[in-house]
Amino acid sequence: MSEQKAFEDANGRYAAKFEKGALPMPPGRHVAVVTCMDARLDPAKFLGLSEGDAHVIRNAGGRADWSAIRSLAISQELLGTNEVFVIHHTDCGMLTFSNGDIQERLRKKYRAETSDRDFLPFKDLEESVRDDMRAIRSSSIVSKDAPIHGYVYDVKTGRLKPVK
Amino acid sequence: MSEQKAFEDANGRYAAKFEKGALPMPPGRHVAVVTCMDARLDPAKFLGLSEGDAHVIRNAGGRADWSAIRSLAISQELLGTNEVFVIHHTDCGMLTFSNGDIQERLRKKYRAETSDRDFLPFKDLEESVRDDMRAIRSSSIVSKDAPIHGYVYDVKTGRLKPVK
Repeated sequence: MSEQKAFEDANGRYAAKFEKGALPMPPGRHVAVVTCMDARLDPAKFLGLSEGDAHVIRNAGGRADWSAIRSLAISQELLGTNEVFVIHHTDCGMLTFSNGDIQERLRKKYRAETSDRDFLPFKDLEESVRDDMRAIRSSSIVSKDAPIHGYVYDVKTGRLKPVK
Repeated sequence: MSEQKAFEDANGRYAAKFEKGALPMPPGRHVAVVTCMDARLDPAKFLGLSEGDAHVIRNAGGRADWSAIRSLAISQELLGTNEVFVIHHTDCGMLTFSNGDIQERLRKKYRAETSDRDFLPFKDLEESVRDDMRAIRSSSIVSKDAPIHGYVYDVKTGRLKPVK
Protein backbone atom coordinates (compact mmCIF):
# COMPACT_ATOMS: atom_id res chain seq x y z
CA MET A 1 0.00 0.00 0.00
CA SER A 2 1.61 3.22 -1.17
CA GLU A 3 1.20 6.34 0.92
CA GLN A 4 1.45 8.52 -2.18
CA LYS A 5 -2.24 9.40 -2.45
CA ALA A 6 -2.54 10.02 1.30
CA PHE A 7 0.48 12.37 1.14
CA GLU A 8 -0.91 14.22 -1.89
CA ASP A 9 -4.32 14.56 -0.24
CA ALA A 10 -2.78 15.86 2.98
CA ASN A 11 -0.66 18.28 0.97
CA GLY A 12 -3.76 19.56 -0.82
CA ARG A 13 -5.35 20.34 2.54
CA TYR A 14 -2.15 22.07 3.73
CA ALA A 15 -1.84 24.13 0.54
CA ALA A 16 -5.52 25.12 0.67
CA LYS A 17 -4.91 26.83 4.02
CA PHE A 18 -1.41 28.04 3.18
CA GLU A 19 -0.99 31.69 4.12
CA LYS A 20 2.75 31.98 4.61
CA GLY A 21 3.25 33.73 1.25
CA ALA A 22 6.80 34.62 0.38
CA LEU A 23 8.91 33.91 3.42
CA PRO A 24 12.59 34.86 3.10
CA MET A 25 15.13 32.13 2.40
CA PRO A 26 17.41 32.79 5.44
CA PRO A 27 16.10 31.26 8.67
CA GLY A 28 14.38 33.97 10.72
CA ARG A 29 15.73 32.68 14.03
CA HIS A 30 19.29 32.12 12.71
CA VAL A 31 19.39 28.56 13.99
CA ALA A 32 20.37 25.20 12.51
CA VAL A 33 19.21 21.98 14.17
CA VAL A 34 20.94 18.62 13.61
CA THR A 35 18.80 15.68 14.68
CA CYS A 36 17.78 12.11 13.89
CA MET A 37 15.45 10.98 11.09
CA ASP A 38 13.49 8.96 13.68
CA ALA A 39 9.76 8.91 12.94
CA ARG A 40 8.84 9.75 16.53
CA LEU A 41 10.63 13.11 16.39
CA ASP A 42 8.85 16.20 15.12
CA PRO A 43 11.49 18.89 15.71
CA ALA A 44 9.21 21.73 14.59
CA LYS A 45 6.68 20.69 17.22
CA PHE A 46 9.04 19.87 20.06
CA LEU A 47 11.08 23.07 19.57
CA GLY A 48 8.17 25.36 18.69
CA LEU A 49 9.38 26.16 15.15
CA SER A 50 7.22 27.79 12.52
CA GLU A 51 7.86 27.75 8.79
CA GLY A 52 10.77 30.11 8.13
CA ASP A 53 12.43 29.80 11.55
CA ALA A 54 15.32 27.32 11.36
CA HIS A 55 17.28 24.91 9.20
CA VAL A 56 16.60 21.30 10.17
CA ILE A 57 19.22 18.70 9.20
CA ARG A 58 18.26 15.07 9.81
CA ASN A 59 19.94 11.72 9.18
CA ALA A 60 20.17 8.32 10.83
CA GLY A 61 21.36 9.19 14.34
CA GLY A 62 21.50 12.95 13.88
CA ARG A 63 25.22 12.57 13.27
CA ALA A 64 27.63 15.36 12.34
CA ASP A 65 28.78 13.54 9.21
CA TRP A 66 30.08 15.29 6.10
CA SER A 67 26.55 15.90 4.84
CA ALA A 68 25.64 17.69 8.08
CA ILE A 69 28.90 19.69 8.07
CA ARG A 70 28.35 20.61 4.39
CA SER A 71 24.81 21.69 5.28
CA LEU A 72 25.95 23.71 8.31
CA ALA A 73 28.61 25.48 6.24
CA ILE A 74 25.98 26.47 3.66
CA SER A 75 23.55 27.41 6.44
CA GLN A 76 26.05 29.69 8.17
CA GLU A 77 28.02 31.08 5.25
CA LEU A 78 25.20 31.65 2.75
CA LEU A 79 22.12 31.91 4.94
CA GLY A 80 23.32 33.55 8.13
CA THR A 81 22.62 31.05 10.90
CA ASN A 82 24.83 31.46 13.95
CA GLU A 83 23.71 28.84 16.47
CA VAL A 84 23.60 25.03 16.32
CA PHE A 85 21.50 22.49 18.22
CA VAL A 86 22.52 18.81 18.19
CA ILE A 87 19.67 16.59 19.36
CA HIS A 88 19.85 12.80 19.69
CA HIS A 89 17.12 10.75 21.37
CA THR A 90 16.36 7.82 23.66
CA ASP A 91 15.58 4.42 22.12
CA CYS A 92 17.53 5.36 18.98
CA GLY A 93 17.95 2.63 16.36
CA MET A 94 21.63 3.56 16.13
CA LEU A 95 22.13 2.00 19.59
CA THR A 96 20.91 -1.41 18.35
CA PHE A 97 23.50 -2.47 15.79
CA SER A 98 27.20 -2.34 14.92
CA ASN A 99 28.83 -1.55 11.60
CA GLY A 100 29.58 -5.27 11.32
CA ASP A 101 25.89 -6.14 11.78
CA ILE A 102 24.56 -3.84 9.07
CA GLN A 103 27.43 -4.63 6.71
CA GLU A 104 26.67 -8.36 7.09
CA ARG A 105 22.94 -7.85 6.49
CA LEU A 106 23.57 -5.77 3.37
CA ARG A 107 26.07 -8.35 2.13
CA LYS A 108 23.53 -11.15 2.56
CA LYS A 109 20.58 -9.24 1.15
CA TYR A 110 22.15 -7.35 -1.76
CA ARG A 111 25.60 -8.94 -2.12
CA ALA A 112 26.82 -5.39 -1.45
CA GLU A 113 30.28 -4.84 -0.01
CA THR A 114 30.22 -1.96 2.49
CA SER A 115 33.02 -3.00 4.84
CA ASP A 116 34.79 0.31 4.10
CA ARG A 117 31.70 2.32 5.04
CA ASP A 118 30.78 3.73 8.44
CA PHE A 119 27.04 3.72 9.18
CA LEU A 120 27.76 5.75 12.34
CA PRO A 121 26.00 3.65 14.98
CA PHE A 122 26.84 4.48 18.60
CA LYS A 123 26.79 2.82 22.02
CA ASP A 124 26.40 5.75 24.37
CA LEU A 125 23.72 8.34 23.76
CA GLU A 126 25.12 11.33 25.62
CA GLU A 127 28.62 10.56 24.38
CA SER A 128 27.36 10.53 20.79
CA VAL A 129 25.93 14.03 21.31
CA ARG A 130 29.27 15.20 22.71
CA ASP A 131 31.14 13.53 19.83
CA ASP A 132 29.00 15.36 17.29
CA MET A 133 29.27 18.69 19.11
CA ARG A 134 33.05 18.21 19.02
CA ALA A 135 32.98 17.27 15.33
CA ILE A 136 31.09 20.47 14.52
CA ARG A 137 33.28 22.57 16.81
CA SER A 138 36.45 21.22 15.22
CA SER A 139 35.29 21.52 11.61
CA SER A 140 37.39 23.93 9.60
CA ILE A 141 34.32 25.29 7.76
CA VAL A 142 31.96 25.95 10.68
CA SER A 143 32.05 29.18 12.67
CA LYS A 144 33.96 29.10 15.97
CA ASP A 145 31.66 31.88 17.21
CA ALA A 146 28.40 29.95 16.86
CA PRO A 147 27.23 28.38 20.13
CA ILE A 148 26.57 24.63 19.89
CA HIS A 149 24.00 23.17 22.26
CA GLY A 150 23.51 19.44 22.86
CA TYR A 151 20.38 17.62 24.00
CA VAL A 152 18.85 14.19 24.34
CA TYR A 153 15.15 14.04 23.45
CA ASP A 154 13.12 11.50 25.43
CA VAL A 155 10.70 9.76 23.05
CA LYS A 156 8.51 8.67 25.98
CA THR A 157 7.98 12.14 27.42
CA GLY A 158 8.72 14.57 24.58
CA ARG A 159 11.21 16.32 26.85
CA LEU A 160 14.70 17.59 26.00
CA LYS A 161 17.53 17.01 28.46
CA PRO A 162 20.66 19.14 28.05
CA VAL A 163 23.96 17.34 27.49
CA LYS A 164 26.94 19.00 29.17
CA MET B 1 20.57 36.50 21.07
CA SER B 2 20.49 32.76 21.66
CA GLU B 3 17.29 30.86 20.95
CA GLN B 4 18.17 28.31 23.63
CA LYS B 5 15.73 29.52 26.27
CA ALA B 6 12.93 29.93 23.72
CA PHE B 7 13.51 26.37 22.49
CA GLU B 8 13.57 24.97 26.03
CA ASP B 9 10.40 26.86 26.94
CA ALA B 10 8.63 25.65 23.79
CA ASN B 11 9.78 22.12 24.55
CA GLY B 12 8.40 22.37 28.07
CA ARG B 13 4.99 23.28 26.65
CA TYR B 14 5.19 20.39 24.14
CA ALA B 15 6.20 17.87 26.81
CA ALA B 16 3.47 19.08 29.18
CA LYS B 17 0.86 18.05 26.62
CA PHE B 18 2.74 14.98 25.36
CA GLU B 19 0.45 11.98 25.15
CA LYS B 20 2.18 9.83 22.54
CA GLY B 21 3.57 7.44 25.17
CA ALA B 22 5.69 4.61 23.85
CA LEU B 23 5.44 4.71 20.07
CA PRO B 24 7.25 1.89 18.26
CA MET B 25 10.64 2.61 16.66
CA PRO B 26 9.74 1.48 13.09
CA PRO B 27 7.81 4.10 11.11
CA GLY B 28 4.10 3.23 11.17
CA ARG B 29 3.56 4.26 7.55
CA HIS B 30 6.73 2.54 6.25
CA VAL B 31 7.93 5.65 4.46
CA ALA B 32 11.21 7.57 4.30
CA VAL B 33 11.24 11.17 3.07
CA VAL B 34 14.40 12.88 1.74
CA THR B 35 14.08 16.64 1.64
CA CYS B 36 15.88 19.95 2.12
CA MET B 37 16.85 21.54 5.44
CA ASP B 38 15.20 24.79 4.24
CA ALA B 39 13.51 26.67 7.08
CA ARG B 40 10.33 27.23 5.08
CA LEU B 41 9.66 23.49 4.79
CA ASP B 42 7.74 21.65 7.50
CA PRO B 43 7.48 18.15 5.99
CA ALA B 44 5.31 16.83 8.83
CA LYS B 45 2.81 19.58 8.16
CA PHE B 46 2.87 19.58 4.37
CA LEU B 47 2.62 15.75 4.17
CA GLY B 48 0.26 15.27 7.10
CA LEU B 49 2.68 13.24 9.23
CA SER B 50 2.18 12.51 12.90
CA GLU B 51 4.85 11.42 15.33
CA GLY B 52 5.67 7.79 14.54
CA ASP B 53 4.73 7.88 10.84
CA ALA B 54 7.83 8.31 8.71
CA HIS B 55 11.59 8.77 8.67
CA VAL B 56 12.54 12.29 7.59
CA ILE B 57 16.04 12.81 6.19
CA ARG B 58 17.07 16.42 5.55
CA ASN B 59 20.23 18.12 4.31
CA ALA B 60 21.17 21.12 2.18
CA GLY B 61 19.24 20.50 -1.03
CA GLY B 62 17.58 17.24 0.02
CA ARG B 63 20.32 15.44 -1.86
CA ALA B 64 20.79 11.66 -2.06
CA ASP B 65 24.35 11.89 -0.76
CA TRP B 66 26.07 9.10 1.17
CA SER B 67 24.47 10.25 4.42
CA ALA B 68 21.00 9.95 2.88
CA ILE B 69 21.82 6.56 1.32
CA ARG B 70 23.26 5.35 4.65
CA SER B 71 20.09 6.54 6.36
CA LEU B 72 17.80 4.90 3.77
CA ALA B 73 19.66 1.59 4.08
CA ILE B 74 19.19 1.67 7.87
CA SER B 75 15.58 2.78 7.43
CA GLN B 76 14.73 -0.06 5.07
CA GLU B 77 16.92 -2.87 6.37
CA LEU B 78 16.52 -2.34 10.11
CA LEU B 79 13.25 -0.44 10.40
CA GLY B 80 11.10 -1.76 7.57
CA THR B 81 10.34 1.24 5.37
CA ASN B 82 9.55 0.35 1.76
CA GLU B 83 8.74 3.62 -0.01
CA VAL B 84 10.83 6.77 -0.62
CA PHE B 85 9.81 10.37 -1.31
CA VAL B 86 12.39 12.83 -2.67
CA ILE B 87 11.22 16.42 -2.27
CA HIS B 88 13.17 19.48 -3.42
CA HIS B 89 11.65 22.97 -3.46
CA THR B 90 11.38 26.24 -5.35
CA ASP B 91 13.70 29.12 -4.42
CA CYS B 92 16.25 26.65 -3.02
CA GLY B 93 19.54 28.12 -1.85
CA MET B 94 21.33 25.34 -3.75
CA LEU B 95 20.34 27.07 -7.00
CA THR B 96 22.21 30.23 -6.02
CA PHE B 97 25.86 29.18 -5.88
CA SER B 98 28.46 26.90 -7.46
CA ASN B 99 31.02 24.69 -5.75
CA GLY B 100 33.63 27.27 -6.79
CA ASP B 101 31.65 30.05 -5.05
CA ILE B 102 31.31 28.34 -1.69
CA GLN B 103 34.86 26.95 -1.81
CA GLU B 104 36.18 30.47 -2.41
CA ARG B 105 34.10 31.92 0.43
CA LEU B 106 35.27 29.23 2.86
CA ARG B 107 38.86 29.76 1.74
CA LYS B 108 38.63 33.50 2.38
CA LYS B 109 36.75 33.23 5.66
CA TYR B 110 38.42 30.23 7.31
CA ARG B 111 41.50 29.60 5.13
CA ALA B 112 39.91 26.18 4.63
CA GLU B 113 40.74 24.17 1.52
CA THR B 114 37.62 22.38 0.24
CA SER B 115 38.36 22.20 -3.47
CA ASP B 116 38.07 18.39 -3.32
CA ARG B 117 34.62 18.62 -1.70
CA ASP B 118 31.24 18.67 -3.43
CA PHE B 119 28.63 20.83 -1.71
CA LEU B 120 26.02 19.46 -4.14
CA PRO B 121 24.51 22.67 -5.52
CA PHE B 122 22.34 22.31 -8.62
CA LYS B 123 21.12 24.40 -11.54
CA ASP B 124 17.86 22.69 -12.49
CA LEU B 125 15.30 21.90 -9.84
CA GLU B 126 13.36 19.08 -11.50
CA GLU B 127 16.56 17.56 -12.84
CA SER B 128 18.05 17.54 -9.35
CA VAL B 129 15.04 15.55 -8.13
CA ARG B 130 15.49 13.09 -11.00
CA ASP B 131 19.23 12.84 -10.30
CA ASP B 132 18.55 11.98 -6.68
CA MET B 133 15.79 9.48 -7.53
CA ARG B 134 18.32 7.81 -9.87
CA ALA B 135 21.04 7.86 -7.22
CA ILE B 136 18.73 6.10 -4.79
CA ARG B 137 17.46 3.68 -7.43
CA SER B 138 20.99 2.75 -8.45
CA SER B 139 22.37 2.37 -4.93
CA SER B 140 23.52 -1.15 -4.17
CA ILE B 141 22.15 -1.00 -0.62
CA VAL B 142 18.63 0.34 -1.26
CA SER B 143 15.72 -1.94 -2.16
CA LYS B 144 14.86 -2.21 -5.86
CA ASP B 145 11.26 -2.98 -4.82
CA ALA B 146 10.63 0.26 -2.94
CA PRO B 147 8.80 2.87 -5.06
CA ILE B 148 10.58 6.24 -5.24
CA HIS B 149 8.42 9.32 -5.78
CA GLY B 150 9.77 12.74 -6.72
CA TYR B 151 8.25 16.16 -6.03
CA VAL B 152 8.99 19.85 -6.08
CA TYR B 153 7.47 21.78 -3.16
CA ASP B 154 6.44 25.35 -3.95
CA VAL B 155 7.42 27.59 -1.01
CA LYS B 156 4.94 30.26 -2.14
CA THR B 157 1.89 27.99 -2.20
CA GLY B 158 2.75 25.03 0.03
CA ARG B 159 1.87 22.74 -2.86
CA LEU B 160 3.74 19.65 -4.09
CA LYS B 161 4.19 19.11 -7.81
CA PRO B 162 5.10 15.62 -8.98
CA VAL B 163 8.33 15.19 -10.96
CA LYS B 164 8.14 12.58 -13.69
